[in-house]
Amino acid sequence: MNGLSHKIYLELTPPSPDDSVSDQMRIARALKEKWGEVVFPLSILRSLYPLCARADWRVTVTLGWDGSRWVIIRLEPGNTAASHYGLCADLGSTTLVMELVDCLSGPVLGQASAYNHQIPFGEDILSRIFYCTDQPEKLEEIRSATADTFREVMEALEKQTGISPEECSAMTVAGNAAMIHFLTGMDPFCIFSSPYAIHADQPGFLWGRELGLPLDCFVYCFPAKANYLGGDIISGMIATGLPEREELSVFLDIGTNGELVVGNRDFLICGAGAAGPALEGGVVRTGMRAVKGAVCAVTLTDGHFHLETIENGAPRGICGSGIVDMIAQLFLNGWLDVKGKYRPEASGQIRQIGEEYAVEYAPGLFFYQYDIDEFLKTKAAAYTMVEYILTMAGISMDEIQRFYAAGAFGAHVNKESAVAIGLYPDIPRDRLISAGNSSLKGARRLLLDMDCLRKLPGILDNMTYVQFGDVGDFLHIMVGATALPHTDLSRYPSVMKELKKRGTIR
Amino acid sequence: MNGLSHKIYLELTPPSPDDSVSDQMRIARALKEKWGEVVFPLSILRSLYPLCARADWRVTVTLGWDGSRWVIIRLEPGNTAASHYGLCADLGSTTLVMELVDCLSGPVLGQASAYNHQIPFGEDILSRIFYCTDQPEKLEEIRSATADTFREVMEALEKQTGISPEECSAMTVAGNAAMIHFLTGMDPFCIFSSPYAIHADQPGFLWGRELGLPLDCFVYCFPAKANYLGGDIISGMIATGLPEREELSVFLDIGTNGELVVGNRDFLICGAGAAGPALEGGVVRTGMRAVKGAVCAVTLTDGHFHLETIENGAPRGICGSGIVDMIAQLFLNGWLDVKGKYRPEASGQIRQIGEEYAVEYAPGLFFYQYDIDEFLKTKAAAYTMVEYILTMAGISMDEIQRFYAAGAFGAHVNKESAVAIGLYPDIPRDRLISAGNSSLKGARRLLLDMDCLRKLPGILDNMTYVQFGDVGDFLHIMVGATALPHTDLSRYPSVMKELKKRGTIR
Repeated sequence: MNGLSHKIYLELTPPSPDDSVSDQMRIARALKEKWGEVVFPLSILRSLYPLCARADWRVTVTLGWDGSRWVIIRLEPGNTAASHYGLCADLGSTTLVMELVDCLSGPVLGQASAYNHQIPFGEDILSRIFYCTDQPEKLEEIRSATADTFREVMEALEKQTGISPEECSAMTVAGNAAMIHFLTGMDPFCIFSSPYAIHADQPGFLWGRELGLPLDCFVYCFPAKANYLGGDIISGMIATGLPEREELSVFLDIGTNGELVVGNRDFLICGAGAAGPALEGGVVRTGMRAVKGAVCAVTLTDGHFHLETIENGAPRGICGSGIVDMIAQLFLNGWLDVKGKYRPEASGQIRQIGEEYAVEYAPGLFFYQYDIDEFLKTKAAAYTMVEYILTMAGISMDEIQRFYAAGAFGAHVNKESAVAIGLYPDIPRDRLISAGNSSLKGARRLLLDMDCLRKLPGILDNMTYVQFGDVGDFLHIMVGATALPHTDLSRYPSVMKELKKRGTIR
Repeated sequence: MNGLSHKIYLELTPPSPDDSVSDQMRIARALKEKWGEVVFPLSILRSLYPLCARADWRVTVTLGWDGSRWVIIRLEPGNTAASHYGLCADLGSTTLVMELVDCLSGPVLGQASAYNHQIPFGEDILSRIFYCTDQPEKLEEIRSATADTFREVMEALEKQTGISPEECSAMTVAGNAAMIHFLTGMDPFCIFSSPYAIHADQPGFLWGRELGLPLDCFVYCFPAKANYLGGDIISGMIATGLPEREELSVFLDIGTNGELVVGNRDFLICGAGAAGPALEGGVVRTGMRAVKGAVCAVTLTDGHFHLETIENGAPRGICGSGIVDMIAQLFLNGWLDVKGKYRPEASGQIRQIGEEYAVEYAPGLFFYQYDIDEFLKTKAAAYTMVEYILTMAGISMDEIQRFYAAGAFGAHVNKESAVAIGLYPDIPRDRLISAGNSSLKGARRLLLDMDCLRKLPGILDNMTYVQFGDVGDFLHIMVGATALPHTDLSRYPSVMKELKKRGTIR
């Protein structure tokens, strides 16, 4: 392991008249060859005595990397080197997910998550930002709520593993720019306001206690590339290894926002857009988060809906993956036309409710035309981001060897459905890769491998950021992508084949 | 100036759509070429907004060296680069002396001092150490008293100069190992206890607030070579430049303890002994510190004492420089023999008081045989340290090009008197150099010149420390040096000449 922290057991020679160097130098000289000139903070200087003497000079030193050098962050009697733990976190605007990792050999000992305590200050990021803009005391409320979220998850991890945060030797945090501004207590209004110059994009290594966390170690926050392209995506780059490979990849993270990176080891073009809420069920009237009772998978066979729900609960609404399935199934069965409009002639189950058509997919739960229209705008935005950047780079979709779909959405959505509605491109399915929580995975990787730190400046340098808000013809291009799967049907041969097979088209 | 802190005025381009890099990187890139990758602590990240924007991106950055890299310790609107201050301190067991320095160009703007607030816990270091040994709460009392001493002097400096400690950008502290242990809150019993391995000899750069000081900057404590050879002496090396010259020098600091360094750029031999209290008037019954009314210079002409006192006060006692003058005058006038014993036949003023002889040098103030005997033991110890180390190195006294007498004693003692009693060697007088408060001078030099930091490891490496306690024949050698000026009179030709001239001897 080549991580951000190390525990080293030392068996030192006790001082004697022939060797009366200081306690400090006794430890320093034992570490020097491998770890260079280590830093002794005041608290460690104070703890040298009587700890070393009482432990008969058999002590364990914990080293933490501060960005430039190794700092002694803990001194313990005896050999505790086998108990070496670290934390990694994906700080999302909705959820904080954290892992407690055995830094000696790498396994994850526990994973826990909690809703972000910022939510009471605003369901979406923008309202949280408006809540505290230019009001330091309100910013402090949100900062403190953010720290509380960490504390809640750390307590859950301690219950799971018996390991307290105070025993951890390093933490890595990946989050978007707004989350990192909130965590560090910086006013995030800059993120959503022209010219989009954020306050700090490289907070680097900060001391846990300074952040209000119960940690006696350094906390590393991933750097951001730009206002809408934060540390969560940079962490995703580390997780996937995309920026190191020769082959071309697309990395698409569709959560609350949509972020995109296209490239390889030679170049990286990236951009972001507010694609997300629809994909989390936000614009669908019966939409809901992926919790118990949410419909997460749909099949429509012979006019009947077959539903799967989270934790097999009675259906209460529909989440992102369910929506994608639903639209795909409605389309493949001919209940929707290429514009995504209900074809009431296709089934008696398509009923007019008020001004619009809808289907009742579960008792009392309707899926409306309006829901579909809104969702398709979002999928069009996501697709168009990809298309725009590929065009910009002069790359065709079939040159893409890996299409990473990151985030919870990417993890749970049915690939075939996503292709059928034109959210994903119609490329060989083994190239469509669910990257999972790549933000968390990258954070864990960096926690355990310092080499990742050395790669980051190169990744950031290689990245070209496209501010989509500045792209005049973006909306124009998007129109073609609102169709099912796309107005240019030649892009979706497998979908055409399926429609023909089903007899939906000839 | 190449000091430990720098203030840099930046006129930055405000963010624009064409240049939307973060506030942090806007500052970092302006500093990078000259200062490398500077560190932004959390407090600075938080202060970026709205400070930069309100100052229209004209800001002054203060950089402080943390031992490895430049850290932004202050961010101010506008151009404040001309107000750049630092502090340097000589932390003695009796007195803390501090200077407030203009770090822009080097002049000392104020100097102040105070008695060490540790004194109530013990007049001498040893009793302070015994007071708190293995009692952390009592150690904390002394640590806190030490910080209070700094605060008192800082307040005095603020009154003098109008500059608060919070405005200072760096501080250097030179003090012996016990003082640095007390300042940092480390148990100092180790210093006086075999095997004399102290807890920390290189505390390096510590944050002012952590030390309990009203400073928002780093505090550098000079390293120690050994238990009795502390940062005050290492600072003296920086002040005199002794370790850089080809010519041979002796550096003798006689304060509460006696410390000695002999050598040049090729080698340095050093040692220390408890020589001091006598030289500060401590063993003389009418002895006192060099405050108002202390006799500081004595001439004896035609049987009459001519006295000078500090601040021309009425004589209340006699301080170190007065004692040396007194013994020299008594000896040169033939009132004392070579063994330092009163010769009552030489003057009717030598009176028997109780069991011993004495002279009344001022109304009611007597100088006793016992005082002389005790003082001569001390001067013998100091002389013998020098002789021992010169013999060890195979150097004769006439090879010594510079004999530095450091400290307040060295600054005030009359050179001829010190030679006459055999405290200083009888070498050409231009080689006898008063180094003044070299501990403070070295601290000031390092504050203003980082190159000194780079010299320190080499100086420490070059030093060979002799633990005089381990030298078996030390007391034996010392016997010869208790005589006036020495049993080997050939070592003191100028004194012989003077005695002959005065007719004291033939």
